[in-house]
Amino acid sequence: MINTNFDKGIVVIGAGNVATHLSMALNSNKFNITCVYSRTEDAAKLLADKVDANHTNKLEEIPTNAGLYIISVKDEVKAEIVSKLEIDKGIVVHTAGSVGLDIFEDSFSKYGVFYPLQTFTKQRAIDFSVIPICVEASSLEVENKLLQLARCLSKSVHKVSSEERKILHLSAVFACNFANHMYSLATNILEGSNFSFDMLKPLIEETAKKAIDCDPIHAQTGPAVRNDQNVIKKHLDLLKDNNEYDKIYRFVSESIYNLKKKKSNNG
Amino acid sequence: MINTNFDKGIVVIGAGNVATHLSMALNSNKFNITCVYSRTEDAAKLLADKVDANHTNKLEEIPTNAGLYIISVKDEVKAEIVSKLEIDKGIVVHTAGSVGLDIFEDSFSKYGVFYPLQTFTKQRAIDFSVIPICVEASSLEVENKLLQLARCLSKSVHKVSSEERKILHLSAVFACNFANHMYSLATNILEGSNFSFDMLKPLIEETAKKAIDCDPIHAQTGPAVRNDQNVIKKHLDLLKDNNEYDKIYRFVSESIYNLKKKKSNNG
Repeated sequence: MINTNFDKGIVVIGAGNVATHLSMALNSNKFNITCVYSRTEDAAKLLADKVDANHTNKLEEIPTNAGLYIISVKDEVKAEIVSKLEIDKGIVVHTAGSVGLDIFEDSFSKYGVFYPLQTFTKQRAIDFSVIPICVEASSLEVENKLLQLARCLSKSVHKVSSEERKILHLSAVFACNFANHMYSLATNILEGSNFSFDMLKPLIEETAKKAIDCDPIHAQTGPAVRNDQNVIKKHLDLLKDNNEYDKIYRFVSESIYNLKKKKSNNG
Repeated sequence: MINTNFDKGIVVIGAGNVATHLSMALNSNKFNITCVYSRTEDAAKLLADKVDANHTNKLEEIPTNAGLYIISVKDEVKAEIVSKLEIDKGIVVHTAGSVGLDIFEDSFSKYGVFYPLQTFTKQRAIDFSVIPICVEASSLEVENKLLQLARCLSKSVHKVSSEERKILHLSAVFACNFANHMYSLATNILEGSNFSFDMLKPLIEETAKKAIDCDPIHAQTGPAVRNDQNVIKKHLDLLKDNNEYDKIYRFVSESIYNLKKKKSNNG
C-alpha cells in the first residue's frame, strides 16, 4: 500500500471519462476503491469491474465511512448529489474545471477539488504521470492529503484557486476542444474530395509538436499571419456557400493577424 | 547519384521556409542544387551554403540550362518571376497550395506543381519522408519525372489537380493555422495568471494524438459538445471584456454543437 491516507477506501461517484481514467490511475497506484456509483448501473459495473470495486446506482447504498469521495459527474447533476450524499468524516472532492470549491461549503466539513487538466476518452490509454493535477482544499490538512494523493499519480501537481482554475479551464477549451474542432472542420472540408483525413495527419502532428517546442504565436504560418489577401480571397470563395465556415474563417484569420500586429507593436 | 532526371541540376527560387526544407531534403537525397535565388542576398547565401550551391539575388544570373526550377516564393512575387525567368528546356514548378498550374501556361513548355502538405519553419528539423507531396504536371512525361523525384523524398506521393489542391490547402489552413491559433489564444488567456503555456502541453499533445488515432469528430470533449450551458456561461462571463475572444468562443462552440447534431441526425 503506497498511501495510507485513504485506508478506509475511496468512493468514485460517476463513471464517465474522467471518473474512469482517474479510477484506473488510482487503482494502478494501489489505492483501494471500494465503490463506484453511477445513475446507470451498467456504467457503474463496467468501471467497478476494472478497479475491483463494488458498484451501485443508488445514492443511499454508497458507503458512509470512506476516506475520500470523488464526484466526477456532469455539472447539472452535481448539485443533487451534493445535497443527497450522506457521509461520516471523509473528504469530498470534485474534478471539474469550472466549478468552485464553494459548492461543498454548506454540505461537508472536509472538501476540495482534484482537477486533472486533460482530455479523457474512456477507450484510450493515457499516461497519467504527466497530467497536471490542480488541487484546492477547505483546509491545510485536507490540502496536504490531496497533494500527497496527487503526487502519487502525477509529477505535475499544482495548488490552484477556484478563480485560477476557471481561467485554466477556459484556456484548455481553446487549446483542446477548439483546436480539435478545427481538425473536424478540416475533415469536413475534405468530404467529397478524393482525400481523407489521413493526408492531414503529419501536418496536425507537426503543428502540435512545433507549438510545444517553440511557442504557438511564434510558430504560426499560413496566409492569415502573412496577410496574404490573395490566398484568403480564394479560400473565402471556396466557402461562399457555407456561412458557418465562412464566418469562422474570417474571424479566426482576422484574429491571427491582429495577434501578430499586437505582438509586433510590443517589440 | 540516386536520380539522373535532373542531372543538369536544380535551381531553387526562394529561400523561405518551404524552399529551405525542400532544398535540404533534395540535398540529403543527393540531388544537385546548382543555384539558390532570393531577392535578399543574405537569405540566398544562407540556404545556398547549406546545400552546397551557388547563390544570386539577380534573376538574370540564374543558370538557363538547369533541369528543374523550383519556384517557392510569396504569391505576389510569383507572377513577376514567371514573367522574367528565362530558361532553355528545364521543368518549372511551384510549391504553393492555392496557385493553379495555369500560372505557367503562357511562359513555359514543361511545368508542374510540387506541393508538400506541411507547416515549415526554417529552424526546425523535419522528417520529409512522411510529408504528403502533391504533384501536378503539364504532360505525362513531366508528371512521371516529378513523381519519381517526389518518391525519392517521401513515401506519401499523390497526383492532385489544381482544384483538389485548393481544397486540401483550405483544409490544411483549418487543421494547422487555425488549430495553432487556438493554442495562441489559450496562451494569451493564461497571460497574467500564475500559469504558463507549459500547463497545456500534455493536453495539446493528447488532443492531436487522439484526433490522429480516432478521428477528431468522434474525439471531441468539453462543454460545447455536451451543450453544457452552465459552463459556457461562466466562460463567456470571463471573456465579456474581450469582444474578439467572445465572438470566437461563441461561434466555435455553436459550430461544435451543430456538427454534433448533424452527425447524430445522420446516424
